[in-house]
Amino acid sequence: MTRVRMALFTSLDGYTPADPTPTPENPMGEDWGRLTAAYAATRTFRAKIFGDTSGAGTTGVDDRYAAAFFDGIGAEIMGAGMFGLHTFPDDPDWKGWWGDTPPFGTPVYVLTHSAPRPSIPMDGGTTFHFRDAAIEDVLAEATEAAGGLDVRIGGGYRTAREFLRAGLVDDLHLMVAPIFLGRGNRLWDDLRGFDLTHTVTTEVAESGEIHVTLTRRDDR
Amino acid sequence: MTRVRMALFTSLDGYTPADPTPTPENPMGEDWGRLTAAYAATRTFRAKIFGDTSGAGTTGVDDRYAAAFFDGIGAEIMGAGMFGLHTFPDDPDWKGWWGDTPPFGTPVYVLTHSAPRPSIPMDGGTTFHFRDAAIEDVLAEATEAAGGLDVRIGGGYRTAREFLRAGLVDDLHLMVAPIFLGRGNRLWDDLRGFDLTHTVTTEVAESGEIHVTLTRRDDR
Repeated sequence: MTRVRMALFTSLDGYTPADPTPTPENPMGEDWGRLTAAYAATRTFRAKIFGDTSGAGTTGVDDRYAAAFFDGIGAEIMGAGMFGLHTFPDDPDWKGWWGDTPPFGTPVYVLTHSAPRPSIPMDGGTTFHFRDAAIEDVLAEATEAAGGLDVRIGGGYRTAREFLRAGLVDDLHLMVAPIFLGRGNRLWDDLRGFDLTHTVTTEVAESGEIHVTLTRRDDR
Repeated sequence: MTRVRMALFTSLDGYTPADPTPTPENPMGEDWGRLTAAYAATRTFRAKIFGDTSGAGTTGVDDRYAAAFFDGIGAEIMGAGMFGLHTFPDDPDWKGWWGDTPPFGTPVYVLTHSAPRPSIPMDGGTTFHFRDAAIEDVLAEATEAAGGLDVRIGGGYRTAREFLRAGLVDDLHLMVAPIFLGRGNRLWDDLRGFDLTHTVTTEVAESGEIHVTLTRRDDR
């Protein structure tokens, strides 16, 4: 049965960097580098995102979680900002900043309130679809498209918190970097009571990164 | 050389329970039970706080940190609330709720703005002193009394945050329970930039408790 999965980065003090004004050169903003360092160092990330097939990268606990992040996903939902729609909003040929072969390999549903635009098939099995609809409806469509595999909710922060607040996330993976950002969006505000419906596990990687998983209990 | 040490409990979402109205029956309030469960289950806690010499209690990672918490302390500083001064403020014979043999075994400096009261020597080496002075001055006195051992800053929350904000804490041990309280005082607000002056380590215990240590770097 399809599960709705999400992975999020946060600092120890519970911040995700405030949405930057994204540019192709620096799509994620300044604090993201510190926050995602352990993930970006993994062999899986280097292979999936950069196409680095040399085998370089860490192979420990961080990599195990990174690999699981890509495993069994049949469809993805993301915000317009994560796709890159806001960068060149008036350019109908702009295909986002994920390159010619995006790392998804599945249908990707981009939530947007801008004018309808046609779907974009990409190399490697990714097709971007643009939807201006309630998240429940888009989730239903993505679930159908996933064909029994899981649906992953990507970023950004606003999309993530919408799904969290609606109680739609079955499996949440928090990557907690051992740093104090002291600024940004407060992730924890959206997680009140999560441990009442979800089982919590904690594990620390060789890098010092804290991995927290929340898995919806079956007794709902 | 004396170091200033502090241990704090927090939930994953960065809360310590708001100060309750303490009573002898329930001095710490309702959320504290969930927050301190892993610590209270340790063999060290049971022996030190309850005098349980049966050897019962957990002996893993949580207990290793609990034992270190008592190791090498030469003096303690705590707020009036942690001593219990607010419970019977007008009773000069009230000796706090730590029992006849408090678990400190050192001089304990209680910060208070109430009327001066004489020091209280207790069984087991603890002597309670009451001070209405700047925290820097009380720390200087405690450091002198510690005779080369370390000074521990106890609770409550207001006392802890005063020392944190003043930058006086050399070694901070955070016990992060894998729960989401969703209410209380926000601990993280006082820890901005701590990872710039202190080295961070992270470790997860068998209980799921996350132990975070922050150790002031020598290159200051």
